[in-house]
Amino acid sequence: MSERIIVINPNSTTAVTADIDSALDALRVDTGIAFECLTLDEGPPGIETQSHVDSVVMPQCRLIESHDNRASAFVIACFSDPGLHAAREATRKPVLGIAECGLLTALTLGDRIGVIAILAGSIPRHARSMRALGIENQVAGELAVGLGVEELGDEDVTMGRMTEVGRRLVDDMGADVLVMGCAGMARYRGRLEETLDVPVIDPTQAAAGMAITASRLGYRTRTQRMIS
Amino acid sequence: MSERIIVINPNSTTAVTADIDSALDALRVDTGIAFECLTLDEGPPGIETQSHVDSVVMPQCRLIESHDNRASAFVIACFSDPGLHAAREATRKPVLGIAECGLLTALTLGDRIGVIAILAGSIPRHARSMRALGIENQVAGELAVGLGVEELGDEDVTMGRMTEVGRRLVDDMGADVLVMGCAGMARYRGRLEETLDVPVIDPTQAAAGMAITASRLGYRTRTQRMIS
Amino acid sequence: MSERIIVINPNSTTAVTADIDSALDALRVDTGIAFECLTLDEGPPGIETQSHVDSVVMPQCRLIESHDNRASAFVIACFSDPGLHAAREATRKPVLGIAECGLLTALTLGDRIGVIAILAGSIPRHARSMRALGIENQVAGELAVGLGVEELGDEDVTMGRMTEVGRRLVDDMGADVLVMGCAGMARYRGRLEETLDVPVIDPTQAAAGMAITASRLGYRTRTQRMIS
Amino acid sequence: MSERIIVINPNSTTAVTADIDSALDALRVDTGIAFECLTLDEGPPGIETQSHVDSVVMPQCRLIESHDNRASAFVIACFSDPGLHAAREATRKPVLGIAECGLLTALTLGDRIGVIAILAGSIPRHARSMRALGIENQVAGELAVGLGVEELGDEDVTMGRMTEVGRRLVDDMGADVLVMGCAGMARYRGRLEETLDVPVIDPTQAAAGMAITASRLGYRTRTQRMIS
Amino acid sequence: MSERIIVINPNSTTAVTADIDSALDALRVDTGIAFECLTLDEGPPGIETQSHVDSVVMPQCRLIESHDNRASAFVIACFSDPGLHAAREATRKPVLGIAECGLLTALTLGDRIGVIAILAGSIPRHARSMRALGIENQVAGELAVGLGVEELGDEDVTMGRMTEVGRRLVDDMGADVLVMGCAGMARYRGRLEETLDVPVIDPTQAAAGMAITASRLGYRTRTQRMIS
Amino acid sequence: MSERIIVINPNSTTAVTADIDSALDALRVDTGIAFECLTLDEGPPGIETQSHVDSVVMPQCRLIESHDNRASAFVIACFSDPGLHAAREATRKPVLGIAECGLLTALTLGDRIGVIAILAGSIPRHARSMRALGIENQVAGELAVGLGVEELGDEDVTMGRMTEVGRRLVDDMGADVLVMGCAGMARYRGRLEETLDVPVIDPTQAAAGMAITASRLGYRTRTQRMIS
Repeated sequence: MSERIIVINPNSTTAVTADIDSALDALRVDTGIAFECLTLDEGPPGIETQSHVDSVVMPQCRLIESHDNRASAFVIACFSDPGLHAAREATRKPVLGIAECGLLTALTLGDRIGVIAILAGSIPRHARSMRALGIENQVAGELAVGLGVEELGDEDVTMGRMTEVGRRLVDDMGADVLVMGCAGMARYRGRLEETLDVPVIDPTQAAAGMAITASRLGYRTRTQRMIS
Repeated sequence: MSERIIVINPNSTTAVTADIDSALDALRVDTGIAFECLTLDEGPPGIETQSHVDSVVMPQCRLIESHDNRASAFVIACFSDPGLHAAREATRKPVLGIAECGLLTALTLGDRIGVIAILAGSIPRHARSMRALGIENQVAGELAVGLGVEELGDEDVTMGRMTEVGRRLVDDMGADVLVMGCAGMARYRGRLEETLDVPVIDPTQAAAGMAITASRLGYRTRTQRMIS
Repeated sequence: MSERIIVINPNSTTAVTADIDSALDALRVDTGIAFECLTLDEGPPGIETQSHVDSVVMPQCRLIESHDNRASAFVIACFSDPGLHAAREATRKPVLGIAECGLLTALTLGDRIGVIAILAGSIPRHARSMRALGIENQVAGELAVGLGVEELGDEDVTMGRMTEVGRRLVDDMGADVLVMGCAGMARYRGRLEETLDVPVIDPTQAAAGMAITASRLGYRTRTQRMIS
Repeated sequence: MSERIIVINPNSTTAVTADIDSALDALRVDTGIAFECLTLDEGPPGIETQSHVDSVVMPQCRLIESHDNRASAFVIACFSDPGLHAAREATRKPVLGIAECGLLTALTLGDRIGVIAILAGSIPRHARSMRALGIENQVAGELAVGLGVEELGDEDVTMGRMTEVGRRLVDDMGADVLVMGCAGMARYRGRLEETLDVPVIDPTQAAAGMAITASRLGYRTRTQRMIS
Repeated sequence: MSERIIVINPNSTTAVTADIDSALDALRVDTGIAFECLTLDEGPPGIETQSHVDSVVMPQCRLIESHDNRASAFVIACFSDPGLHAAREATRKPVLGIAECGLLTALTLGDRIGVIAILAGSIPRHARSMRALGIENQVAGELAVGLGVEELGDEDVTMGRMTEVGRRLVDDMGADVLVMGCAGMARYRGRLEETLDVPVIDPTQAAAGMAITASRLGYRTRTQRMIS
Repeated sequence: MSERIIVINPNSTTAVTADIDSALDALRVDTGIAFECLTLDEGPPGIETQSHVDSVVMPQCRLIESHDNRASAFVIACFSDPGLHAAREATRKPVLGIAECGLLTALTLGDRIGVIAILAGSIPRHARSMRALGIENQVAGELAVGLGVEELGDEDVTMGRMTEVGRRLVDDMGADVLVMGCAGMARYRGRLEETLDVPVIDPTQAAAGMAITASRLGYRTRTQRMIS
């Protein structure tokens, strides 16, 4: 049987969608499962505030509903996991959020998680999600690289900041596994892991991996709408 | 100075808005503060799913922005606290959610909170909020009365079910303070408190009270959008 | 109906009572509710140890009992919340502690609380209260200004130390809302909020606001003595 | 060197002091350490409310100070641990509370603690202490035997109720170790352990044991008063 | 590249190994990854006590070391996750425990986990693991089917008991996702999910899925031995 | 009655056993209880990894079984508490782990525990134990002195490093009680306590003290093997 995992980039920047798509190549090796990456046209250029997060929920639900027949699982590829619980009402197919999957996968590789965020303003928002997920005590800390969009294009600068922030998480805050708190940073994973000598998780890859399993096994989530 | 607290009913049912408005009468006594209750026209008739919750966030933000100059504080009058954090980006005026305020106020009157929900399907959603707020260990339990909208109109039935559920929360689950998990149930507060002999909180009243204080003192929340 | 909220300064220093009284002015605007501030003559000059805390409990209970008929609610205006639970046995009127109310109110304005203490020796005592209240995970940290009584009179020095300590709580420890851990520091609230750009809570004002609501709504606490 | 552990019964009922004294016999075997049991004359006949708890703190501190030179350690023999932290300011000798020691000792014998209380009204008060101590997640539950003082004299009735309550804690609530939540119930320990086949802790004995060790090793607590 | 995931059955019963092997068929579809299931000859017939758990650690480490060159990842297929942390010192390849992976995967499908154990005696041992993993607050409960080995062979009896226990976890204890607390029960997953209408996780499949991802991405765990 | 507490050094270095034996002298004063210290010949020279921990479990169980008739209680004298739960299946006599007892005893002397480890690599392993015990929120931090075996013999160097690390735990991380995270460091306890002015716990002494009590009172643990 052919299976198709729909990966949604909830911001409208197609370059990010392309990055996400590249990140999945490592998981595309002859699995008989196709990843299809979609850009949410209605999304903001980047998701940087709670309003951005909430603004994508309804169009994302509509996108999920329109692809429901074609998909065996969905991945929401933004570290704020926007609309994760609403999406699980829009379909009974598994819906994986990359923050949830990245953090939970990290717990299989280490005891205390360090998160590398892009912007400091996202940290309290992420903290609310971690508390709602119930794993905040396993998070050693979250630090931001504090780079604007244009600087992220510079691999040397970005790699330098990620290394610096990662080292503080490991050396000063006790993290023994790192999660990159943003979709599409997969290109830095290997180098960072080698430099810092701790496991480093790309959350999109972690979620995509869990989506393959969920798709293969045919997990079905309970229809919340019906029991309400 | 005259102050105005805008209380938003995020569902579109004006009868609920009227109930909310009545609940506030007890706090209207010559305070020099006006409560103005608005119905969110774009909202669903009732907020019963996560999709309902998320669907009201953006129109609610616009409503808040359009009243920002007239208001000294805002109250979101739905026990799912829809869009609370996005609302706090839409204005620097205090924004109070009735679930947050009801639960926190309960902690000043007892040690372990029991919550009376309308529908069982809301309980996991509420649980996520309680975890995000960090007080889940203080919640002894949440039980639903399981009444449809039409039955809620029957005061005898409703009072009977609330009493039964409240007693289970107190006697079996150890609650020593109750929170009614729905806007506009204020009419039952006094009777329930008397029958069960534990303090009972109407969350809309709790939030309105905190809004008065916040309005008087001129609290200003940090502009998340700017620091992101 | 006329209502009277009795605010008890459990130390015997009348200048502190006067400060507390001033802090309440912002909440006195035509509410039809009178605040009456009492000094506990039997209290120590300042409450700086656990023995001080415990020494005021019984005389404070007697003071509450002697004013019970006149009061609609009580506020205990010391950040150690001395005798809070015994007071709730001495009257069925609501009894609000300023630490409890300050901390809980902070949770409506931010995600992680920073507390500015006067003396380092109080911090473990406050930590026990926060744990008993169940919100210790929401407290980013507590730091002391470390000023003696005579220095507190110097507004420049005090404001300087509060700013310095507040900045460490925000910048280094991740607090996004501050609570001033002492009664009668209300005069610094506005300036500190402006300087640090985070919400700042005066706990006495927070408790007084919750007392107004509790008084208006006629909350009654369970008589612990009877059920024991 | 001869050492003397002062065990304080903070209620004024000398029969309880005698029970406590008997409970210690099992630990008196040729240890070179004397237990001396004192009755707090100023205490109430029984400690059943928070006011009772708080009322004994100051006279108990005075009692401790007056015996400080004669004692190598102190035990406060009431399951509410009244005045424990104030007592630790009154002396630098170790002060052990029986609730603290009973619960902590239980964690060396099982994973989840069940507590057998005398009166239901004490349970919320005990819960506050457990939270302040930080071990509430290890407590499977606390249930009361609900016997009045006169019935406690009837060993058959008391043993029957303790067995029934203990069985519910073990079978229904998952406890694998029990703590008797009252001073001087040591006489039931062996029988209850045998009947229920789980370890049963008498908290006075647990505290007395820790006091012997603390006394032998010369632990000294920090003088809180000095650092404040 | 061809990859090989070694799945270890740490008990010596080859019929269980065969069950585990069958459970993996759903994940074997053309992925280019081979699962190889090994029986730990030195293991006990079943792992039912803490001694059983600990007895397999060292031979299992030796088995891992002897296959390290051939493997891209390891799975330990026993719900007690025996020797998980020691195994992570024996190899830098990812080592997945089925309890960890089953529980973490469950958090992507529901909010509160119910666990179906085989034997009641395992529940405290599992609870220690859940606490060490830090997710005990997300576990609604664990209940045992209480069947002996011979009865497990009877599918009707087993399915009946699993259904009964699962229903109690969902209806009475609030679970919205179930984890089967034993390796090789995969054959019941689909039926149980359909009957109870909640997602049901087979932990071996969950771990195998995470192992595929870890293998594909080349995660490397830190060498604990070297940093000690 | 004569009682004998068997104290097991699970590493094979007899000099450590001798240190442990010396540490117990302070508790040997005419108690009628003999401490007998045994070296586990099968153990590694030092326990520095999880594999070391797990490798001693089975021979240690056999050692316990072979001495069961002679012993009234057992102490496992390694701060990793190796095989604690398996040991409790090997005998119904009380088995005390020094980490458990040291940490729990610390909670009777302070509010927040600082742990002084030997090697940084042990800290995550200890953290797992603390989480499994449920007291991780009471641990302010753990820091390593980072000394090799040969340097530990130099009392000046060791005392210097312990003082430095202890001071950081107290001054920077808020610890008000310290636990030495290694067996046989008792010789430094008094000096460290005097220098840092906080209580300092030697975990072997703490466990030995609890073993005396458990032995005197005849605690019996449940036979896990039987209920499984």
